[in-house]
Amino acid sequence: MDTELIEKVLQGHRRAISRCISLIENDGAEAQAVMQALYPHTGQAHIVGVTGPPGTGKSTLVNELAKLYRTQGSTVGIIAVDPTSPFSGGAILGDRIRMRDVAGDPGIFIRSMATRGSLGGLARATADAIKVLDAAGYPIIFVETVGAGQAEVDIAKTAHTTIVVEAPGLGDDIQAIKAGIMEIADIFAVNKADREGVEHTVTALEMMLDMNHASRLARSGPEEKAIWRPPVCRTIAIRGEGVPELVEAIEAHRAYLRETGSLVERERARVEKEFRRLLEQRLMQRLLEQTPPQQLTELIERIAAREIDPYTAVEKLIGE
Amino acid sequence: MDTELIEKVLQGHRRAISRCISLIENDGAEAQAVMQALYPHTGQAHIVGVTGPPGTGKSTLVNELAKLYRTQGSTVGIIAVDPTSPFSGGAILGDRIRMRDVAGDPGIFIRSMATRGSLGGLARATADAIKVLDAAGYPIIFVETVGAGQAEVDIAKTAHTTIVVEAPGLGDDIQAIKAGIMEIADIFAVNKADREGVEHTVTALEMMLDMNHASRLARSGPEEKAIWRPPVCRTIAIRGEGVPELVEAIEAHRAYLRETGSLVERERARVEKEFRRLLEQRLMQRLLEQTPPQQLTELIERIAAREIDPYTAVEKLIGE
Repeated sequence: MDTELIEKVLQGHRRAISRCISLIENDGAEAQAVMQALYPHTGQAHIVGVTGPPGTGKSTLVNELAKLYRTQGSTVGIIAVDPTSPFSGGAILGDRIRMRDVAGDPGIFIRSMATRGSLGGLARATADAIKVLDAAGYPIIFVETVGAGQAEVDIAKTAHTTIVVEAPGLGDDIQAIKAGIMEIADIFAVNKADREGVEHTVTALEMMLDMNHASRLARSGPEEKAIWRPPVCRTIAIRGEGVPELVEAIEAHRAYLRETGSLVERERARVEKEFRRLLEQRLMQRLLEQTPPQQLTELIERIAAREIDPYTAVEKLIGE
Repeated sequence: MDTELIEKVLQGHRRAISRCISLIENDGAEAQAVMQALYPHTGQAHIVGVTGPPGTGKSTLVNELAKLYRTQGSTVGIIAVDPTSPFSGGAILGDRIRMRDVAGDPGIFIRSMATRGSLGGLARATADAIKVLDAAGYPIIFVETVGAGQAEVDIAKTAHTTIVVEAPGLGDDIQAIKAGIMEIADIFAVNKADREGVEHTVTALEMMLDMNHASRLARSGPEEKAIWRPPVCRTIAIRGEGVPELVEAIEAHRAYLRETGSLVERERARVEKEFRRLLEQRLMQRLLEQTPPQQLTELIERIAAREIDPYTAVEKLIGE
């Protein structure tokens, strides 16, 4: 194992961090050894997920958040995840990152992650890249996703604080998507708040959140811990407006998580999910190593010819 | 096993088909038995995937395609997949389907599928729902997705013919998404073709397709089979314009698949993917049955406390 690489990551060397994340993306045996060595040094950073429909200005908002944390003396990690680009290999995101005005700041580390094969692979690589930045000492890490599908939701769920970004005047399809990401939000940011329709968007969100909060309060016993009611922040990211308030909201949620013990719960849920995913991958890997490729090919041919159904074929291969 | 249910599905009874898909969604032991019984009767339908960015009018286009196939005497199956609604449980899609003007036609079967837990679960349920409609005798089945992320791409890939729907004048984020779904398209439909910017969208697509086609031709040997060059169809779905030409393109692609043997290849790839997914699920299920829940909980606690890393924990649980 490359102990020099690990030491340099722990010291926060940018090039070592980059190399480390590339190792993860290529998913070799070396990556696992590195992650094993880094793992005890993780668990310090606050992870902020930023998700929401396309066109809401998530990247610009993350840039401004990063700049503000910088003025407070903090370093910042940014991971931009693009589960929508199975073929571009992240090239577009790469271009976007080069264009970002925070890219030159040595206190900000930006990395894009795109699907190279499977969503499962992306989720694993993203989780590991977060750990690398965590072990390297970045106290706050933003995980920004391009879209707002289930894949993005899954990735955002690994965060401690999830910001859902909205914008006024998005279409009907977007409304449908929105319904899917509502319940994962710890904070709403209504960006492009100088646009027409902002009052409508904010009012609709506040009403929904009030209803949701009231019903949760009604269901909870008197001895239960305080229930977080997601705030709605108005931002105009391109002018930096509303960003200080958004940072305050992040810090308030962080305090809430610590004080109520929810942080421990979230961490436990995250770990369980990651562990199960890893188990699944390893079980499959082991089976494929033990199975002659020819046997697999034959079974697939027979399923395709409708001579055997896939369920029976699975039982044949791994037993009852 | 419910042999009456299976017989009724094979005879095309709508209520039996509905019940069967509900069984699949609930994923019980009964579902597997039903799928085993139906499997030999599948493989007849032509599956058409319809995907593309939000706001391009996919639902309306699928409606019009279904109507046209109806006038040609065919029955039509439609499965609307929504990987973006992990929490709404398909309620929004359900509403949309009730509003569709093809919903009253007894020759059209429409069903929505939404994420209830995991993307893997949705992909499996969708694949099985397609098989139910296939076994029930629908000669053409449209699988329509709400968004255009990796999840949608994965689902669209299970189709024989994939239509990517575009519209003029979508924003920058949408362009990035587009790059991801470009290469899975067998046919492009530029919908809302009465909008400004349609010439630009069509020209950009045609140029990209020409370049791509030329480079594929240059790479292929003289003895290789013909290479399909995706056509670009202009449609105005709300007025039914361009839909006959789109149906012609579907039928041309179908003929191409049959004549070149690509149909067999696609089917084999689809089967392999499904078989692997099933294997993975079954392996995990078996491990969880064999592991005392307490052992799992303890390992997760220790990982969360950074006493052990997840990779070592996996090895501990399943051995080297």
